[in-house]
Amino acid sequence: FITSAKEAMSLLALVCLSICLSVFKITQKSCHATKPDMLNVHLVPHTHDDVGWLKTVDQYYYGDRNDIQHAGVQYILDSVVDQLLKNPDRRFIYVETAFFYRWWKRQDSSMKQTVQQLVNEGRLEFVNGGWCMSDEATTHYSAVIDQMTMGLRFLNDTFGVCGRPRVAWHIDPFGHAREHASMFAQMGYDGFFFGRLDYQDRYQRMMQKEQELLWRASDSLTPPMADLFTGILPNGYNPPDGFCWDQSCSDPPIRDDPDLEDYNVDDVVKRFLNIASSMVYKTNHIIMTMGSDFQYENANLWYKNLDKLIHYVNAQQDLGSRVNVLYSTPSCYLQELHRANLTWALKTDDFFPYADDAHDFWTGYFSSRPALKRYERLSNSNLQTCNQLEVLGGPTSTNGPFGKGDSQTMKKAMAVAQHHDAVSGTEKQHVANDYARRLATGWQHCQVLVSNGLAVLSGSTAQRFYCDYLNISVCPLTESSKKFSVNVYNPLGRPVTWPVRLPVNGTAYAVSDAAGTSVDCQVLPLSKDTHNVRRSRGFAVNELVFEVQAPPLGFSTYSVSLLQDGPLAASTQPRTPTAIQNKFLKVTFDPDTGLLSSFSNLETTQTIKLTQNFYWYNASDGNNSESIQPSGAYIFRPNSSTPFLISSTAKTEFIQTSVVQEVRQWFSPWVSQVVRLYAHSRTLELEWTVGPLPIHDDLGKEVITRIDTSIESSEIFYTDSNGREVLQRKKDFRPTWHLKQSEPIAGNYYPINSRAYIKDDVDQLTVVTDRSQGGSSIHNGSLEIMLHRRLLYDDVRGVAEPLNETSAIFPEGLVVRGRLLLSLDRPASAADKHRPLAQEMVLQPLLTFTDGDLHPDAKLEFSGLQAALPPAVHLLTLTQWDAQSVLLRLEHQFQSWESDVNSKPVTVNLQKLFSSLEVLGVSELNLSANQWKDEMKRFEWTPQNVPPTCRSVWEVTLKPMEIRTFLLRVRL
Amino acid sequence: FITSAKEAMSLLALVCLSICLSVFKITQKSCHATKPDMLNVHLVPHTHDDVGWLKTVDQYYYGDRNDIQHAGVQYILDSVVDQLLKNPDRRFIYVETAFFYRWWKRQDSSMKQTVQQLVNEGRLEFVNGGWCMSDEATTHYSAVIDQMTMGLRFLNDTFGVCGRPRVAWHIDPFGHAREHASMFAQMGYDGFFFGRLDYQDRYQRMMQKEQELLWRASDSLTPPMADLFTGILPNGYNPPDGFCWDQSCSDPPIRDDPDLEDYNVDDVVKRFLNIASSMVYKTNHIIMTMGSDFQYENANLWYKNLDKLIHYVNAQQDLGSRVNVLYSTPSCYLQELHRANLTWALKTDDFFPYADDAHDFWTGYFSSRPALKRYERLSNSNLQTCNQLEVLGGPTSTNGPFGKGDSQTMKKAMAVAQHHDAVSGTEKQHVANDYARRLATGWQHCQVLVSNGLAVLSGSTAQRFYCDYLNISVCPLTESSKKFSVNVYNPLGRPVTWPVRLPVNGTAYAVSDAAGTSVDCQVLPLSKDTHNVRRSRGFAVNELVFEVQAPPLGFSTYSVSLLQDGPLAASTQPRTPTAIQNKFLKVTFDPDTGLLSSFSNLETTQTIKLTQNFYWYNASDGNNSESIQPSGAYIFRPNSSTPFLISSTAKTEFIQTSVVQEVRQWFSPWVSQVVRLYAHSRTLELEWTVGPLPIHDDLGKEVITRIDTSIESSEIFYTDSNGREVLQRKKDFRPTWHLKQSEPIAGNYYPINSRAYIKDDVDQLTVVTDRSQGGSSIHNGSLEIMLHRRLLYDDVRGVAEPLNETSAIFPEGLVVRGRLLLSLDRPASAADKHRPLAQEMVLQPLLTFTDGDLHPDAKLEFSGLQAALPPAVHLLTLTQWDAQSVLLRLEHQFQSWESDVNSKPVTVNLQKLFSSLEVLGVSELNLSANQWKDEMKRFEWTPQNVPPTCRSVWEVTLKPMEIRTFLLRVRL
Repeated sequence: FITSAKEAMSLLALVCLSICLSVFKITQKSCHATKPDMLNVHLVPHTHDDVGWLKTVDQYYYGDRNDIQHAGVQYILDSVVDQLLKNPDRRFIYVETAFFYRWWKRQDSSMKQTVQQLVNEGRLEFVNGGWCMSDEATTHYSAVIDQMTMGLRFLNDTFGVCGRPRVAWHIDPFGHAREHASMFAQMGYDGFFFGRLDYQDRYQRMMQKEQELLWRASDSLTPPMADLFTGILPNGYNPPDGFCWDQSCSDPPIRDDPDLEDYNVDDVVKRFLNIASSMVYKTNHIIMTMGSDFQYENANLWYKNLDKLIHYVNAQQDLGSRVNVLYSTPSCYLQELHRANLTWALKTDDFFPYADDAHDFWTGYFSSRPALKRYERLSNSNLQTCNQLEVLGGPTSTNGPFGKGDSQTMKKAMAVAQHHDAVSGTEKQHVANDYARRLATGWQHCQVLVSNGLAVLSGSTAQRFYCDYLNISVCPLTESSKKFSVNVYNPLGRPVTWPVRLPVNGTAYAVSDAAGTSVDCQVLPLSKDTHNVRRSRGFAVNELVFEVQAPPLGFSTYSVSLLQDGPLAASTQPRTPTAIQNKFLKVTFDPDTGLLSSFSNLETTQTIKLTQNFYWYNASDGNNSESIQPSGAYIFRPNSSTPFLISSTAKTEFIQTSVVQEVRQWFSPWVSQVVRLYAHSRTLELEWTVGPLPIHDDLGKEVITRIDTSIESSEIFYTDSNGREVLQRKKDFRPTWHLKQSEPIAGNYYPINSRAYIKDDVDQLTVVTDRSQGGSSIHNGSLEIMLHRRLLYDDVRGVAEPLNETSAIFPEGLVVRGRLLLSLDRPASAADKHRPLAQEMVLQPLLTFTDGDLHPDAKLEFSGLQAALPPAVHLLTLTQWDAQSVLLRLEHQFQSWESDVNSKPVTVNLQKLFSSLEVLGVSELNLSANQWKDEMKRFEWTPQNVPPTCRSVWEVTLKPMEIRTFLLRVRL
Repeated sequence: FITSAKEAMSLLALVCLSICLSVFKITQKSCHATKPDMLNVHLVPHTHDDVGWLKTVDQYYYGDRNDIQHAGVQYILDSVVDQLLKNPDRRFIYVETAFFYRWWKRQDSSMKQTVQQLVNEGRLEFVNGGWCMSDEATTHYSAVIDQMTMGLRFLNDTFGVCGRPRVAWHIDPFGHAREHASMFAQMGYDGFFFGRLDYQDRYQRMMQKEQELLWRASDSLTPPMADLFTGILPNGYNPPDGFCWDQSCSDPPIRDDPDLEDYNVDDVVKRFLNIASSMVYKTNHIIMTMGSDFQYENANLWYKNLDKLIHYVNAQQDLGSRVNVLYSTPSCYLQELHRANLTWALKTDDFFPYADDAHDFWTGYFSSRPALKRYERLSNSNLQTCNQLEVLGGPTSTNGPFGKGDSQTMKKAMAVAQHHDAVSGTEKQHVANDYARRLATGWQHCQVLVSNGLAVLSGSTAQRFYCDYLNISVCPLTESSKKFSVNVYNPLGRPVTWPVRLPVNGTAYAVSDAAGTSVDCQVLPLSKDTHNVRRSRGFAVNELVFEVQAPPLGFSTYSVSLLQDGPLAASTQPRTPTAIQNKFLKVTFDPDTGLLSSFSNLETTQTIKLTQNFYWYNASDGNNSESIQPSGAYIFRPNSSTPFLISSTAKTEFIQTSVVQEVRQWFSPWVSQVVRLYAHSRTLELEWTVGPLPIHDDLGKEVITRIDTSIESSEIFYTDSNGREVLQRKKDFRPTWHLKQSEPIAGNYYPINSRAYIKDDVDQLTVVTDRSQGGSSIHNGSLEIMLHRRLLYDDVRGVAEPLNETSAIFPEGLVVRGRLLLSLDRPASAADKHRPLAQEMVLQPLLTFTDGDLHPDAKLEFSGLQAALPPAVHLLTLTQWDAQSVLLRLEHQFQSWESDVNSKPVTVNLQKLFSSLEVLGVSELNLSANQWKDEMKRFEWTPQNVPPTCRSVWEVTLKPMEIRTFLLRVRL
């Protein structure tokens, strides 16, 4: 019996082919010597290669569509390798593995050997190394960890330890999430560099020499586990003014032939020394990022001039200059900062929102492209199911009765979708389409895998149908079939109860569960909004609604039979009810307006006043002038701080059944909502449908829903960071500097990835979202969330398109539908509800369908776990790693302070975890699974000893907010 | 005694370091095999590097001012060499030695060895190889031969025989001069390719498969001496549409990774095959120029895609495709055309004017920037003097009493000035300024050499003053000195008589010649125009005028003493004389208008009616629309075919002295003229002063002078080609196709480099110009010459500036002054006058001054020749080649048909040529001095045997229009 999985796993043990033995040694060896008595200027040649933005990722790779933007990554890598070979002093860093991977697989073995050598010698250094440089405001930690893992695994597999990045590098994302820093720390990075932060913040930090800091990125994890040394780059990620020598720049090259005109060496040296001496940093080391977007396509230009710069500037040392300039990398620079052995400012909040000027808050993209944001989130859920079934279904899942399936296509699609111009919504329309298409293609590949996997687990090879348009009540099978079954796969580590809504044309159905027990079900008339948004893609007139339960990491199967086609039992009534309620919740309505008026938790006997309505901010149009900032894909800038009320009253319909009660509200032809309470739910669902936003008045619109309550929140509210830890927000306030607020709305917006809440001493109203959205609390007791944006002007940040989404099906403008789940709780126990609730929203059950009768031998229920995981533990990742092993991530999903019950360490026994998998060995990895955890050594920036803990290799303890990552050697 | 100079001259004997022994063998070896049964597509990777245009030559070299145009030649050469090394199949051609030289001298020895190897293997091939790609319409053959010699010599010295271009390559010049073809033939080129010709001509040639032709470029030289195979490139010099893969292009790259989106190999192959099969050429070989302006800065983009193109297109051969695509060069392509052994259309006229559409005649640049054109011409004269004195003065001339001087700086400045966007006037203003500055700097270097050389020859080291502004009567020395001497250096091989005009403030002077004999001289009041144009740069009120004589290739010295400061003896009279005349000529004036009315040659007793006046064409402004062509730097497009008369009458003054008679005419504040007849002159001088052209009316102006005569010229006129052979022009007619005339004025303009004439059976009126100008004969007996242009719109050919010349001294617009020399003769003997006259204009005497008394021992007269050359022989070149040898070019300056007396072979004895040089050996070279003449072997395109002639090595016979080039081994 092998207790460690390490020995059997070749890929992580891949030893460096050449000179280096440990990263520490490499760095030592490959960094150029600095001069302790001089100002050392670290020149870092780099390229910033967006994994899609103005062009698609493949267009960027090839250099296609250069009419849109000149950029061709294949040529960048060709050129840089060539130029590195010309002078061993030169250095380069590469960041985006999505591109590097594309390039690598087209190289011959001799080139591969050359590159390995450059990597081994530290001349080519990977930094960050994820598949992409993820967005920080709109991504979910689950997908970020996955994309980082994929990129870093490629580097590990390809280059071994010498290819492992030591530095995280988020030079472009538009604000920085604390959770990202936490993840980077847990991935083993020694430090983190970025380029964008609030202009007031930067000024303050420059004044106080605090552009380098120690980010304590978790209030729950024991330091230094989530501590990350963070450096703010001096000029974004660009070179100093006048020193851009890329082909895309027009700065004067160094003209050093005295026989030719315009000899300028003296001028260049003088300008450089001026700039270097004006930079304010703490040590005698400064960094200059010598590169920018898609630069180094012709690296010769850069290097030829940098060689000369170094030569001529250092030649001044003989004349008394105290400036020493050298080729460097972020890790070499970081090493020098570490050696300086100074103390660094501590930061515990985050870097949101980001403003680059007084009226330029990059808070619009928190909500831009809400449909893409939802599709990305849903795709993550589907991918996790796909990953799990690849493990649970074994080899047959990828090559089985339904053909060849794979999870890799969707993993890659999800990985590129995490890019900071992907799910962020800040790409051009055709690029957004490309991301969506990739996800769809990935899901097609996964569907085969899922069908195969479920066939293995259920013992049935009946054809399996997928209904991807259930949110608009389209599903050809259920619309026409008289008898079908629904497989409900639950990717969570706990059982789930879930409402199923199926488009049907019958008026009465019988539903039975896996045990054959009849299940309460109801047929409701389809809302007219759904008729409208589905266009001609479906023809159901009703919806069959019932609640299902599925076991952890498994499925349950429900059978549905048509009973009759006659008139509906349940019908809508054109009125507003006074209240709707179930055992747990009650909400009341104002009969005059049709709006919500109060919200009660019947279990805790809490009640708050609560009204909710829809508004739109009039987007600033920039007065058609470049000097005045318009709202756009990135930037939110309302023309007025007072949003327009769409309607003070709602037209309502009410429908009440044993399964669900719905109040359907119409506010305008383009805003409607269903207030929905399921019989067994502890959460109130608000299903909003917004669009097409009208633009015939030539006004850009940013639609919010605002919930106004009696909670005494005092302009304090809470938002999650990448779906994990929650941070406190306060209106017109920043924790680390005295804010001069210049945008009363946009300057108070924060990203909501999965939840936001307001609270006072007794009440906490939590809203769980189904996608990333921007939101704020502008007034006491109020919480607003931006749902949809339609803008008529570009916001002059490069995308060069107004965010004005249309499609072939919605030429008049996109209609978006989504859900908010509201819960009212006591603050001390609210997390006990919103934590699992948010995970259910993120990893929602996958419904698959088979037509006709179920095969009598079919297994109708399955759980991959021996038992449900404890409430505090989330099964974050279960995915096949190689033929023998699977990657498992377990997560403590509570912050240390948020639950009396759950914010405690919890222990799981890995050997007793799975029902169908025998775990033969286990080894713990860092978060990104590119290093054995016990071999992970990070620079210590604040000396602190964590005492070693001894326990059984099988006993895994998770402390609050911990994620632990394991490689399991398994047998089915 | 060595009769051949060859053995002693190392540079031309430089043997190839590597594999090649003869050019023929190289070509054989280095060209890729073709397939005789297929259509072979020769892909020729190339870059077109303007030696100045939108940026200066040094800015282009460095890649400076990329804000104006992205272009950096240093990087092009870096990149191409790198990429050639990556795949031995790849080929590249390089053209402009001005750039290659700049690059080469910055390379280390290992790179030099690498490049030599590439050249030896034919992977890097030099084509054309001159210092620049000269303009063909506005250059003088003397300067063109010099710049070609300089470029080709560098290649010879550097690379030996493998670096010798076999193909002339003028892909960009805007029309093609027959004399250029003649020169290229005599330089040993096997063929010539160009890209631009009249669109009607191209269409015709495409229809008739005559885009390849044999150009018989001289009516005097015995074929095939001036025969040149000429190929017209299929798409200018650009790649076919859709196949531009430079970084500056946006065509889709070949996307051949089936795993990525947008795989397009099938589409690319299909498009390529379509284009190839649509090209109409005579053989089964076609050429595609894969490059364009300043392309290949990142050669990887081109080559990576070309590699793929070749691979995928040729892969189709297995599927039956009959197209074979290969990397090639012009010489490899030419070799295949030669092997085809076909007959080719014969062409004896030229390719002027060039029109790219019906209203787009590139005939404006014949006259654009008249001041630069004159300065270039004058600089050539000064350079030839400088060259000669370097030979005659020996080593002291470059390092003597006045310091170190050199001719090389000016040679280079003149060489770049020959570029087709230099003297052509089609560059941006700042670039025009740079050319002028380079010429000025070159002349400063030469002045030291000239002073040293004259010190050697005269035995006097007295300080020598140069007066470069004599044309505007500025010369500080003569303005103030009471006693000074004038050294008149004559660079011609015959004695010269020349009028000297010196700005003075005295009113009477004594002048004596070298023998001490008194010389008739007169002091004239300075014209008010000169007062105006010199601005504050001089303060002379009078001009001292006298005629001097200088011996061949030597000087004579004149002493000048102030006699008195009192009132002027000669004064102007405010009237029009009836006539002015000397022994040879008489011109009459119309007293009512002040205009010329007749012109008589008293020796031949010819008289013609002749009026002359000034007009302006109203430049088309393109209606501010891109679709309508405006006049610009390149294009002449008058708004109306009828020019505006500036004034029907001239205000006149008359002054009559024994030395000169002048009628000063004022037509407007911006047009004046002096009609001038010197006592001993057989030519009438018209000194025009035009400018600043007024633009307050927002009308662009193109000023001409028109001479209307009684000559029955029937719309036939004659213009020279690059200052050498004269071609007949006929209004609205082209010799090789039926012209559809769409621009009655611009479509009849031709370049005049040194002369134009009209004639009938008895009279020929010849106008010799002092610079290149455009001109035409629109009416019977009429000849018009464009003098100055000022335009308010860009003509959309890339220069992106209106041709609107101003300067610090002339902020209101440039004033230009020049001279036309008119002679009236019998047609059969007119050339006897205009040939030497034009040479005197081109190689005019250089005046230098010393202050005070002459040293009593000073040698006041010197001739470097034992005797004057025969009238038919022009001393074209005498320049130091290396320490032991000098380069000599002798030229027969008459066409075979133009003179009864002089159009005959003439013999010169080289050993008896020089007075101060002992000629120890002689070897004859080709015209560009990069090959021994007897080793020059060219492809024979029309089989024809020239019987060998036997004669003494010293006896050199020149047949009409022959230039012969010798390397002489000499001793002073």
